[in-house]
Amino acid sequence: MKELKEWFDALSEIGVAAEGGYYRGSYTPEETEMYRLVAGWMEEAGLTVRRDAAGNLWGKVDGRNPEALPIVTGSHIDSVRNGGNYDGIFGVLGSLMAVKEILKKQGQPKTTMEVVAFTGEEGSRFSIGLMGSHAVAGSLDKATFREKTDVNGVTIAEAMAEVGLDAEQVDEAVRDKVGAYLEMHIEQGPVLEKAGIPVGVVDSIVGTQQFRVTMSGEAGHAGTVPMADRRDPMVYAARAIARFPEIAKNSGDGVITVGRIWTKPDAENVIPGEVCFTVDLRHPVEEIKQEMAAAVKRVCEEEAAPGGREITWIPYPNNLATEMTPELKTMLMEACEELGYPCRLMPSGAGHDTLNMAKLGPVGMLFIPCLGGRSHCPEEYASIEDMEKGVRVLETCLNRLAY
Amino acid sequence: MKELKEWFDALSEIGVAAEGGYYRGSYTPEETEMYRLVAGWMEEAGLTVRRDAAGNLWGKVDGRNPEALPIVTGSHIDSVRNGGNYDGIFGVLGSLMAVKEILKKQGQPKTTMEVVAFTGEEGSRFSIGLMGSHAVAGSLDKATFREKTDVNGVTIAEAMAEVGLDAEQVDEAVRDKVGAYLEMHIEQGPVLEKAGIPVGVVDSIVGTQQFRVTMSGEAGHAGTVPMADRRDPMVYAARAIARFPEIAKNSGDGVITVGRIWTKPDAENVIPGEVCFTVDLRHPVEEIKQEMAAAVKRVCEEEAAPGGREITWIPYPNNLATEMTPELKTMLMEACEELGYPCRLMPSGAGHDTLNMAKLGPVGMLFIPCLGGRSHCPEEYASIEDMEKGVRVLETCLNRLAY
Repeated sequence: MKELKEWFDALSEIGVAAEGGYYRGSYTPEETEMYRLVAGWMEEAGLTVRRDAAGNLWGKVDGRNPEALPIVTGSHIDSVRNGGNYDGIFGVLGSLMAVKEILKKQGQPKTTMEVVAFTGEEGSRFSIGLMGSHAVAGSLDKATFREKTDVNGVTIAEAMAEVGLDAEQVDEAVRDKVGAYLEMHIEQGPVLEKAGIPVGVVDSIVGTQQFRVTMSGEAGHAGTVPMADRRDPMVYAARAIARFPEIAKNSGDGVITVGRIWTKPDAENVIPGEVCFTVDLRHPVEEIKQEMAAAVKRVCEEEAAPGGREITWIPYPNNLATEMTPELKTMLMEACEELGYPCRLMPSGAGHDTLNMAKLGPVGMLFIPCLGGRSHCPEEYASIEDMEKGVRVLETCLNRLAY
Repeated sequence: MKELKEWFDALSEIGVAAEGGYYRGSYTPEETEMYRLVAGWMEEAGLTVRRDAAGNLWGKVDGRNPEALPIVTGSHIDSVRNGGNYDGIFGVLGSLMAVKEILKKQGQPKTTMEVVAFTGEEGSRFSIGLMGSHAVAGSLDKATFREKTDVNGVTIAEAMAEVGLDAEQVDEAVRDKVGAYLEMHIEQGPVLEKAGIPVGVVDSIVGTQQFRVTMSGEAGHAGTVPMADRRDPMVYAARAIARFPEIAKNSGDGVITVGRIWTKPDAENVIPGEVCFTVDLRHPVEEIKQEMAAAVKRVCEEEAAPGGREITWIPYPNNLATEMTPELKTMLMEACEELGYPCRLMPSGAGHDTLNMAKLGPVGMLFIPCLGGRSHCPEEYASIEDMEKGVRVLETCLNRLAY
């Protein structure tokens, strides 16, 4: 498995950002260069390489039984801005490593196997998350490609043209059903490292609901309005936000984050007339996620009641909680047991391409620890030893699924 | 007193802001035009007019006794952006009205009387509050005039030159002691209107302390870090801010305002690594103000303790609480009694030029109600009837002080 480290070292030279970390946006020269290298490694492993109409890279080895639906494994190749070298990349290179190993040991499989490197999972260039896998699942609106632009005003279609892709043909990337999709990923959280467990088997990908909340009160002079006469939305917002952790705790595995907050008119000596904040809430069980959203609304309304004004809620797209396929969860856990690796069933707090691939067939996901749970930052790191454990678990499952 | 309404009507044409309300910054053509009109009305009232080296306008009638320290009354002529036509202006025009009335009735006073219209009280052009009266009290740093600029990069010295003033000569505006300074102002709060009382006698001008507080925690992915593993400074900040009203309540007349708040990195799906907010706290008694500041710090430290990081405090300039001169408070209240006006002793939550004039002699202030307590906004309004009551109270005091 010495290639794994060599591959990571080679990619670590590409897309180094001046401000620290990496940036590998969709359809950039950096992404193209990464694809060039990965395509070469796929070919060395004995795979037939193609790039689909959306720009995703696929490496395939045909199985002896052309009737069987293909077994697909992989992740995404793009990164956030100032991100790390492991988010997504581990799933791409680790999958390729597992396929290469098993082909070397066992030759042609019964069932076709494919390794995929999706583009645009992060949405860091065009603000569309899971873009490449949406194209594959057929859940992308083609009009978006002509309309959405990056920060420099370049449309998706224009950016695709620069790397030889035609946005009008993107439907050709849509795939038929697959036999299974398995994705490996760094955890991006601290749970596995803290517990000293090398493998997490994903139980479900959490549902996410985001809102922008606006609480109104009455702006006024910070010195002349007695406390009893105030309708200060900053106080209402603080009281509500202070209660969110309790809502999360009562939900079991749910999390609630207020990532942004600001006031109007935003002056030191003025009681705000308005406070806006964002709420991001997640839970692995869709029904409980919805109960959390209702509880957040109730708490905000209770705390803002003295202001006597309606609260404004702007919902952002709502992602449903998605359970992994039970048979694949079991298979992943059994593989860990065979290999003697402690593992833990856990939710994924982040969204992944698996969400789209679930539209095409059974899905399974595994996590490996990452240093301090850090991700989306230059400090992101996973050890070769942990990555190799993930590869062996995947290889064991591929052996069961494709041979 | 019919002139009072005419004067207000004439000024209401000047400095009308496109976005609503008025803007009359220091050394602008709008301010010059206002001074031209006010100077004319001063002359009609029999006063000798001069503009001092800082740009403040003075109208004087000499008393028969040249030894007696002059009795000064007035307020400021500048406005905030999108402000009203009464904040400051009422004190200028109302004082002129009172002096005009008493001169008409009683002729030359024993003691010299002066009406002043200060420039730059609001600091809305150059971010120096009480600028004109600071110049008069000798508490202004001249270097500031060459350094500070408005939003267009014009220095104070350059702006002064445009209206014929020389910043190098600003020390000539410094005055000797005065016999008394009386200032009338709209309340800028809801207390008098709510109580149905036409006159407030200011007991003291509150002390103000502002800080910028930074709470740190650990940034992280909004989905992947379980609640128990978070060090989320937004939660700490919310819990602290939610406790501020209790601190204010325990202080008696104190107020606490969080006017600004923001997070870093300021993203919907990221647990903030840092939350910054401003605290503006005020109390009429200096000692209690300091106790409030200590309580705010203690509460912030308690709530941020789980984050294990030091809180950063950046203090802004601290204004001491300033008591009005007891004899003038009594005189103002007795005047109200004579005239049959209910009055109330009350703190001023806002700073005023009186703070600087207190360095030159005894000071007294009176408030009149303003509609809904609104000020610093286009809706600012005081009725002619309430303004006339203020004028009569002032006239009664001038009669005692100067005749």
